[in-house]
Amino acid sequence: MTRHSLGPRALLMPTPVLLVGTWDANHRPNIMAAAWGGICCSRPPCVAVSLRAATYTHGSIERAGCYTISIPSADQISRADFAGLVSGRTVDKFAALGWSAVPAETVDAPCVAQCPLVLECRLLQAVELGSHTQFIGEVLEAHAEQAVLGPDGLPDIALVRPAVFDPAGGHYHGLGDDLGRAFTIGRVWDSQPRPR
Amino acid sequence: MTRHSLGPRALLMPTPVLLVGTWDANHRPNIMAAAWGGICCSRPPCVAVSLRAATYTHGSIERAGCYTISIPSADQISRADFAGLVSGRTVDKFAALGWSAVPAETVDAPCVAQCPLVLECRLLQAVELGSHTQFIGEVLEAHAEQAVLGPDGLPDIALVRPAVFDPAGGHYHGLGDDLGRAFTIGRVWDSQPRPR
Repeated sequence: MTRHSLGPRALLMPTPVLLVGTWDANHRPNIMAAAWGGICCSRPPCVAVSLRAATYTHGSIERAGCYTISIPSADQISRADFAGLVSGRTVDKFAALGWSAVPAETVDAPCVAQCPLVLECRLLQAVELGSHTQFIGEVLEAHAEQAVLGPDGLPDIALVRPAVFDPAGGHYHGLGDDLGRAFTIGRVWDSQPRPR
Repeated sequence: MTRHSLGPRALLMPTPVLLVGTWDANHRPNIMAAAWGGICCSRPPCVAVSLRAATYTHGSIERAGCYTISIPSADQISRADFAGLVSGRTVDKFAALGWSAVPAETVDAPCVAQCPLVLECRLLQAVELGSHTQFIGEVLEAHAEQAVLGPDGLPDIALVRPAVFDPAGGHYHGLGDDLGRAFTIGRVWDSQPRPR
């Protein structure tokens, strides 16, 4: 098998599409799109999102010590993209997109009322890495539209329909076929245990 | 719109499927599956992956100060799941899966020869968060199978076919339809600029 060197590139794929919600210094709601982030701890439940220092949202998170993450569905992807195209310094993105800003319940930040899934985060750590600051937040509350809940009361990913971002090609993608249950489908390889 | 409280849960979706590669203390290759991770910086290129302290890989990363991330394709998902089911303390996962461990070029860790995309990471920071330690690594080198490269020389996500993990439902999914180009499709919302 021939392997091709790509140099020092953070080509992890796929990445999520996250809308980071904050109030600005004048208590105007703002969102920005981010794909550098993910879950980073289970207990306490923590997520991380990385932003460049030049972004308007960066200053708002540092000031407030909190933020929300609204997860857009695939049919909201052009709106999410817009939230990454312009700055909240000059544009009221909620107004431009026809979206409603709703105050979070547990932190002092707004979220997108129209997004199927929202996480409310209290800032735990800001890790300076270079071009980006990684904001690690404890999730104090998650909430979802009633319409995307499954029978178990949790969000059904097939109803949330989250988008993914491809950091190599720069395109968004939808969610594909169900490939099987975790901690289950791998058991087939256990049929012939080979101890160390 | 009725919203439903889910409590304090890190229900960010989707998350990636990552195979973290290390040598153990006896220089035996090991991999474990992880979904708590993502890109966290562009310059330097950094990725993060969070592991519980009890995992065999956790000790190996702390000892070696480096790790690899091999990204499996959708048709390797049952093998990836197996890598999250059993511990390298007792099972040689490479042997069980019929995979080959290849030494990374820039760090002292093995990667999966059969995976389409690999990142070689030098540990920058270990952030203790509670149940999980977040290992932030600088990507010193990325490499891909020649067969998954697009015309631009970068990995084509449609050829890599990475899987995603749903932290709510616990299933893996494939990649769905192309939803459009980032920093482009959102321009439609800019047609009627509404300044602050």
